[in-house]
Parts: sequence; C-alpha cells; structure tokens
Amino acid sequence: MNALDNHDTIRAVVYTGAALRLLDQRRLPFEETYLDCHSADEIAVAIRDLAVRGAPAIGIAAAWGVVLEAQNLARSGQAVSAQILDPILARLNAARPTAVNLAWALARMRGVLEHATQDPAAALTIQAQSIQDEDLAANRRMGELGAGLLGASAGVLTHCNTGSLATAGFGTALGVIRAGVAAGKIAQVYAGETRPWLQGARLTMWELARDAIPVKLIADSAAAHLMKSGAVQWVIVGADRVAANGDTANKIGTYQLAIAARYHGVKFMVVAPASTVDMATPEGSHIEIELRESSELLGMAGKRMVVEGADAWNPVFDVTPAHLIDVLVTERGVIEHPDAERMRTAFASVSHAPTLERTCANW
Amino acid sequence: MNALDNHDTIRAVVYTGAALRLLDQRRLPFEETYLDCHSADEIAVAIRDLAVRGAPAIGIAAAWGVVLEAQNLARSGQAVSAQILDPILARLNAARPTAVNLAWALARMRGVLEHATQDPAAALTIQAQSIQDEDLAANRRMGELGAGLLGASAGVLTHCNTGSLATAGFGTALGVIRAGVAAGKIAQVYAGETRPWLQGARLTMWELARDAIPVKLIADSAAAHLMKSGAVQWVIVGADRVAANGDTANKIGTYQLAIAARYHGVKFMVVAPASTVDMATPEGSHIEIELRESSELLGMAGKRMVVEGADAWNPVFDVTPAHLIDVLVTERGVIEHPDAERMRTAFASVSHAPTLERTCANW
Repeated sequence: MNALDNHDTIRAVVYTGAALRLLDQRRLPFEETYLDCHSADEIAVAIRDLAVRGAPAIGIAAAWGVVLEAQNLARSGQAVSAQILDPILARLNAARPTAVNLAWALARMRGVLEHATQDPAAALTIQAQSIQDEDLAANRRMGELGAGLLGASAGVLTHCNTGSLATAGFGTALGVIRAGVAAGKIAQVYAGETRPWLQGARLTMWELARDAIPVKLIADSAAAHLMKSGAVQWVIVGADRVAANGDTANKIGTYQLAIAARYHGVKFMVVAPASTVDMATPEGSHIEIELRESSELLGMAGKRMVVEGADAWNPVFDVTPAHLIDVLVTERGVIEHPDAERMRTAFASVSHAPTLERTCANW
Repeated sequence: MNALDNHDTIRAVVYTGAALRLLDQRRLPFEETYLDCHSADEIAVAIRDLAVRGAPAIGIAAAWGVVLEAQNLARSGQAVSAQILDPILARLNAARPTAVNLAWALARMRGVLEHATQDPAAALTIQAQSIQDEDLAANRRMGELGAGLLGASAGVLTHCNTGSLATAGFGTALGVIRAGVAAGKIAQVYAGETRPWLQGARLTMWELARDAIPVKLIADSAAAHLMKSGAVQWVIVGADRVAANGDTANKIGTYQLAIAARYHGVKFMVVAPASTVDMATPEGSHIEIELRESSELLGMAGKRMVVEGADAWNPVFDVTPAHLIDVLVTERGVIEHPDAERMRTAFASVSHAPTLERTCANW
C-alpha cells in the first residue's frame, strides 16, 4: 500500500457496469449525493451543469458516455459504429469549450470505434478504463515530481479544485499538495474561494478537510495581500488547456494570481497531465474562453444578490502567458520556464485536437 | 441646479434632529430600510456591523453619535463635557480600526468639546454638520478633478462601494465616475463584486443602476482578464487611510488590482478626501488591517457554503504601495505619482491622528 493512499479516498467518477455514477459537485459540501447517468446525453448535461467538472474528470466522464451509448445500442440489437455515434460524440464535445481533455478523450474513443473489428462496445470499455487509469497514474507521478520541487515547510496557495473531484483521483495541483504534505514539505495550504462557482470554498476545502490537510480559505482578492505577508512560497494550480507555447488556460483568476506571484517573487507551478496539452493550439489567444450565464454572478446560494436588471460579465477561464509560469509539471516530467521550444521537445507527439477534428469533420 | 444633481439622489446618513437615520446597507439591494440610532453606542454597533460603512460615512456617523450623546446628557440635565463624553468617543473610535476618518471626525468633535464655552451640544451639532457638508463638497470637487484626467470613452473598473452610500453623498471614486459619465467621458463601468461582503455586487450595482450609469458586474478574480481585453483604461478606487508616503489602505483586493493595472499599463487612481490622509502614519506597513470573522467567508446569503470545521483568513483591507498609484485625487488637488515629498507639500497641515491621541490619552 502506498503511503499516500490515506490521502486519496474520494472517487467522483465511477463506472458501475450499468451506469456512470457521478458525485454531484453542485451539492457539495452539504450532501454527498450521487447521480447515475445511463446515456451520453445525461452525461453531457451533467458536464454542462457542473455536476461533474475539472478538465480530466470531464474527459473521463465523456469517454464513459460513449461506452454507455454503445452498450445501449448493442442492447437494442443495433450496430455500434462511428457513423451512428458521431452525433453523440459531438454533443458531448460541445458540453464545455475550454478544457481540451474533453476533445482528447473523445478522439481516443473515436479512434477505437474506427479500428475495432469485433465487439466495439467491449473495446470502448477498455479504452475508457485506460483513460481513467492513466489519469490516476499520471496524477500520482505528477504529485511526486511537483512535491520534489518544494522546499521545506512551504506555504502553498491553490485555486479552484484540482483534486480527486476533478480527476480520476489524487488530483493535479492538489495531487502535488497531497504528496507535499505526505512528504512533510507543506506547512499550510491556502485555498482561494474561486468565485463565482466557489470550487475552492465548496470542494477544495471539503476534499482537504477529509484528508486532514491544514487549509485556510481566502477571498480570491486577498491573494496578493497573502503573498506580501510572506506566508506562501508557491502558487500551485491545474490547467484546462496548455497551448503549444506553454500559455495556459485555467479557472478565472489564475492569470491574476500569476501576475501577483511574479510581482512578489512567489513561484508559480502548473500541474496538468499530457492530455491537457494541446499542441495544435499555437498560443493562448487561440483558446476559446467559456462565458457562462450572468446569473452565476448575480445570485448566490440560490438567492439573488444584485439589483434587478443588472448585467454581469462572467468569463470562467483566463489565460496565463507562459512567461509567468515558473514550472509546468506533467507526468512526462518537469518543464521549467515553458516556451514553444521546450514544449515541442516534450510533447511533439501530442496533437489530439486535430485528430479529433480530422476524424469528425462533420461535428 | 448642478447638472450632476440627477446623478446624486441617495443619502445614506441623515440627521433628523432626534436621531441619526442610516440606510441599512446590510439589506441592500433587497430592501431600502432605515435604521434610527438614538445614541452613540447604537451608532458604534451600526458601524461595526456594517449597517453604515465607507470611510467618510463612518466618520460622519460617529460625529453625529457624539451630538446625540450630548443631547441625551443635556436632556437629562447633565453637563456636557469632554470628561463625560471621552469613554463614548473611545467606543465609537474602536468600532473599526482601518479607516482614519473615524478618528479624524472624533478628533474634530473632541476639539469642540474642549473649546466650547457655552452650549456644547449646539456647537457639536454645528461641527457634525460641517464635517458632513465638507465631505459632500469635497466629493463634488474631486469628481471634477478626477473626471478631468479621463480621456474620451474610457472603460473604468472600480472596487467596493465608494458612492453616496459610503460618504455624505456623490462619492469619492464613484463621484469621479458620476462626473465622468456626466461629462460623456465614460463609456462603460465595471464593478468588482468585492468579496466577502459584496459591496460592489450589492451596493455599487444598485447605486449606479439608480442613476442609469452603464455598469457590468465582474468576479474580483476576472479583473486582470478584463484589463488584458483592453476594455478598461482606468481603475478608480477610494481609500480608508492614505499614509504620509502615499501608501493607501483600501478594501481587500485593491492591491491586487493595482498590481494587475501596472502590469497591463492601465492607470490607477485613488480618490479620497483630505480627511482620509493620515500624515501621522509614515507608511502603509504601520496601518492596522482589520481582520473580520471567518464566518463572512464561510457563509453566503445566510447559508453556510464550506464544510464544517473549516478555517478562513479574512483580512478586509490591504495596502497598495504608493509607487503603484498613478494619481491621488483629493479636494486639494491632483497628486501624480504620490510620494513622501509630494504628500508633505500637499498635506503638511493634516495630522489628525496624533491630535486625537494627544487629547484623548486615556482612550
């Protein structure tokens, strides 16, 4: 048993054989409610409505959506083919635009559909399980690599939720934090509450509390003041898409943290599996930033907080330029000061997005 | 009638002769409820509990608290003296620590008590009314000066609430925005929601909507992304205390905005009356930053949002160093790139805090 196992007790995406069981993240931390999805469309809705969220987790959920759909076809005696499943893959892919993991996972599933000779449903199941297992393994590896970069008794600030809830387990940035705590290198974690959806307040605080990791919540706007106090040496975040030059899209507010970190000489670490790297997107300005409903900002906890008729601007991601990133950690290794050349060297073989678009031109 | 009068319809602090009537800012924007305070202690509670907030407004409210207390004494046939009122002034002064306006207003009231020969209650009333009237006049003047600095069709980002609700009327940063809109120089205002207390979402959005000023709400963490988009040319904020070297304490998140503004070449303007300048505090590191209850971050709209047992760090102000401030606007004029020398030239005669401490050594 790995010494870290007692720091990894949550599984948010579980395939039961008959359904995909999602820990409903809209109801945390108040209720641990599970949502059983039986079709790809139910999963697409769960992704769009944030019952499941986090770049790796939505890729995994979408892959299982294809499996469920293939099983539904097989059960009703219909053929399982790319032609029949393509509209379903397209709907899954459209559920959220910014994280590349969704397109990446669907491209892998599409590849299986194209090449499977007999029993495509079984082959799809194996592929979805591989995507999930590889993600967990990548997170363990990144945890080790990232924690290796920390000094003794570090204070760490993180943003959004990048833990077991956002992945197959263990987490990306939270994986590094878990490994850092296990190695005795982290004295205190601070979590930004992550408006508007409060992934930090609701999810990261819950997840770290379960593992007894010392964490304090801060308002997102208190981060620079915290850095000035000397309490943090590292900002550690995840990613939704890393472009070919190292520019990184992540939860809104990440960019602001990176600017403040550089201003204070605090190190900035991005932790993301290779599935989040999109070598087909040359730089951050090409990444589509999801704008969500203004209602997410105008209300809170189900209650309207702003005068009637008010308008809001609610981008839920932003792009941190590579030059503000001190280190990018993937399961392939650590890239210091990522740039186009270093990214090319590490990820020349990764180009999932065009694969997806080439094979599914009619999406 | 001033052309700006239709942009200044709100009065949050009104002395009725029998009470101080406060527009209860905890209930906005849902209800316009007024709170009648009949004693200094009721006002101290209203200040501490944020029924009235904003550095100038709490100074004004505290001054009226002294008036009410003197009237209560006179009504019961007791002498009105500094000796009797000092403990009450001390309680008012302790209501909130960061804004210097509270101590400044109380020092003015204390001065009246010390020098009034007959009918101190009447003299105190005149002084409180002067403090209030001077604040409104200062805001009008600052609006004019600040708006004069804007180019055509500016996009402006503001933080917290610095309007009529936070002052005697018109506002500091919102006064500049009102004047800028009236002069046709502002195309769009963006308001940061200002966690945890949501002064931007609840108060600024309400106040600007009443004056039909075009405003969009953003998450505090979206500010850098907004700046990168080119939509704003100015960040305009108020202040709770400006130190002798120009360092400025203001609502948590202001410092982060100033760093991001400098990074993007967006101009940063602080608007505050001379009563907010504290020449007795040499620099920002000497300013006491109020830490408030973690419950303000752990709950929202009356509902707990974070796992039980969670901890939070809730500083509600931060300090922006003078070198990040492009311009400080007071009613005395515009100071570009404030520093100790320029501050000394402009404010050599302003040193209220020591007056307060000297005259009330037993506070």
